[in-house]
Order: sequence, then C-alpha cells, then structure tokens
Amino acid sequence: MSTKALPDPSRRSETARRAILTAALDLVAEVGYAKLSIEGIAKAAGVGKQTIYRWWPSKGVLLFDAFLGLAGDGDAAALSDTGDLAADLKLVLRATVEELNDPRFDLPMRALHTEIVHDPALAADYAKRLDEPMRELKKDRLRAAQRAGQLAEDVDLDVAVDLLFGPILNRWLQRTGPLTPEYAERVVDTALRGLRPREP
Amino acid sequence: MSTKALPDPSRRSETARRAILTAALDLVAEVGYAKLSIEGIAKAAGVGKQTIYRWWPSKGVLLFDAFLGLAGDGDAAALSDTGDLAADLKLVLRATVEELNDPRFDLPMRALHTEIVHDPALAADYAKRLDEPMRELKKDRLRAAQRAGQLAEDVDLDVAVDLLFGPILNRWLQRTGPLTPEYAERVVDTALRGLRPREP
Repeated sequence: MSTKALPDPSRRSETARRAILTAALDLVAEVGYAKLSIEGIAKAAGVGKQTIYRWWPSKGVLLFDAFLGLAGDGDAAALSDTGDLAADLKLVLRATVEELNDPRFDLPMRALHTEIVHDPALAADYAKRLDEPMRELKKDRLRAAQRAGQLAEDVDLDVAVDLLFGPILNRWLQRTGPLTPEYAERVVDTALRGLRPREP
Repeated sequence: MSTKALPDPSRRSETARRAILTAALDLVAEVGYAKLSIEGIAKAAGVGKQTIYRWWPSKGVLLFDAFLGLAGDGDAAALSDTGDLAADLKLVLRATVEELNDPRFDLPMRALHTEIVHDPALAADYAKRLDEPMRELKKDRLRAAQRAGQLAEDVDLDVAVDLLFGPILNRWLQRTGPLTPEYAERVVDTALRGLRPREP
C-alpha cells in the first residue's frame, strides 16, 4: 500500500477539464469542426469519452466553453473606461488584432467562424452565447461615451459596433489586407471622425 | 440525311458555357466547394468532362468565372456617379443586400466565402480576381467624391471601403442581425457622418 497522498480529486478534475478544452481547440484547428469528434478529443486529452460526456452534452457545447475560455482574456480590455473613448477602442482593437494573429487563436476561431457561415443553428448559438454578450459590453462602453459627450446621442449603437469591430473581423476572415495594430487605429479614428470633410 | 440546318456552333458553345457556369453555381450551393467536382458539374450540365477542361483548367477557375458572371450585374451600380455620394453608396449597398438575401446568390457565395476563410491560396486568388478589381471601382468612386468635396481629403480609402462595405458582408456571413435595406442606409449615413457628436 502506498503511503503517498492521493491527488486531490477536485484538482484532478480541473486538470482533466483543462486538458479536454485545450485538446478541443488544438484538434478543431487541425481537422476542422466537421471532423472534430468527442472520441478524438478524449484520445488527445488522455481521458475517457465518458469523462467528456459527464461535463458536456455535445462537441458544440464543449467547443463553446473552450472559446469562452479563450475570449475571457479579452473581456477586461473590452470593458475598460479610462474616459478616453478613442484610446479605449484602440486598446481593445489592438488586443483583438494581436489575438487573431496568434496561431493558437487564429486556427480554432477560423474553424468556428467557417462553420458559422454555413450552419444557421450554430450561428444562432454563437450569437446568443458569445457575440451578443460581447456586443452588450461594447454597447455599454459606447453608452458611457454618449453620456460623456464623446459619441453622438442619435447613433445606432449596433451600427457603431459593426463599424468599429466589423472591419477587423472581415480583414482577418477574408484576408483582404494585412491585419496590423496601425490598421486597427485607423479604423477607430476614421469611424469616430466619419468620411465627410471636416467643417471648415 | 437530315435536311434540318445544323445548329450554329458558336451559339452551341455559348449555350454549353452558360449551362456549365449555372451547374457550377447550383452544385457548389448544394455540396460545398470541397465536394464540388468537374465530373459532377459535367453531369449536371449535360456535357462531357473534356468540354469543361477545354475552357477551364480547374474547378477553382471555373467557379470564379461563374462568380464574375454573377457579380457582373452589380458593377454598374458600383460605378454610378450621380454627384450624390450618399445616394450612390446607398444604391449599391441596397442592391448588395438584395443579392445576398437571394438564395440563388446566397448559397454559392457562402460556399466560396467559407472556403476563403480557411484556404489562403484561394483567398489570394479571390482577392486578385474579384475583391481587388471591385475595390478599385469603389475607390475610384470615393476619389471622385474627394474631388467633389464630399469626402475628406485625408481619409484612407481602404479603410473607407471597409467601413462602408464590410458591415454588410459581416452581417451576412456571421448572421449577427437582419440584413435589410434600412441597415445598409444606416451604415452609409453613420460612416459618412462619424460616431462623434456633431460640432455645435
């Protein structure tokens, strides 16, 4: 009989959970969402399939949890309010650009976005669980800017979010140009100022 | 020996060419780009594989020609210059919304965009053959607006194109909200005016 202490079961669970989430992200980047399987994730994570099914009902829900974990790091920046709208927007968009240029994020997020494009059910789930909560955080920041007199009162906040965050997502997904921090800053400045000539 | 006149060979060629392009678009909407094959297109178009290979070296080039044919209808609107920048932009964006909401366009274009997301070579080809020429037409119109004093002199025209056209593409691809003519008009007005409060 061993005299060594048994590992703490809750710590062991947390280790397995993290291994599964990491394996799911690695694997979806490698094989794509369509070919992602619970079996494959279990094998890569070194756990049994039943361990995964105990915590997640499907690969979709599992993958979302993995993405929510990834996205979690960005939330603080999305919420920051230093009182300077342009600076706060540039901070979060530069962080987004950095994330999207990082292969650890790029590959699994590309797989998810690819699936969203032709799977309306997944798109609805993504909208509800990830896009809409994030969008609300962004709109909260824009509302604060309206109160501070830094954003026009009558701007449609959904259109504002689309103008500020959409070009980054687009350039990343469609690879229409280099995705740089400078591009992110120019998008913020241009959206805030508008395309029309300044009044003389 | 038949006394009927033989069909005009050039007209027969044109009929076959159109049947092939239509079959390619129908089939890619049905099975996706990955499963699209020259064999399948030939069968659907009622022609031999060799007929297709005589005109197109690969399914990618064939599909691009089919898309260029689709996109052709929109070019006139992209170029129109009535002297009113906002009106011209709304016209082309409303036409784009209508096109993207039409299942005949939606399905094959979604298939192409899905492939672009995870195929850098296809993205480069798309950029060169479709996105960049269209982008130049858009920038030509914006340059004319600069000369007419309707667009700020120092605006980055690529960023301007992204702000005006990107939100439509995004909302369509990611299904983040209803894609309506009103949305298109709000994007144009907001991008032109900017998000900042108007000077008093």
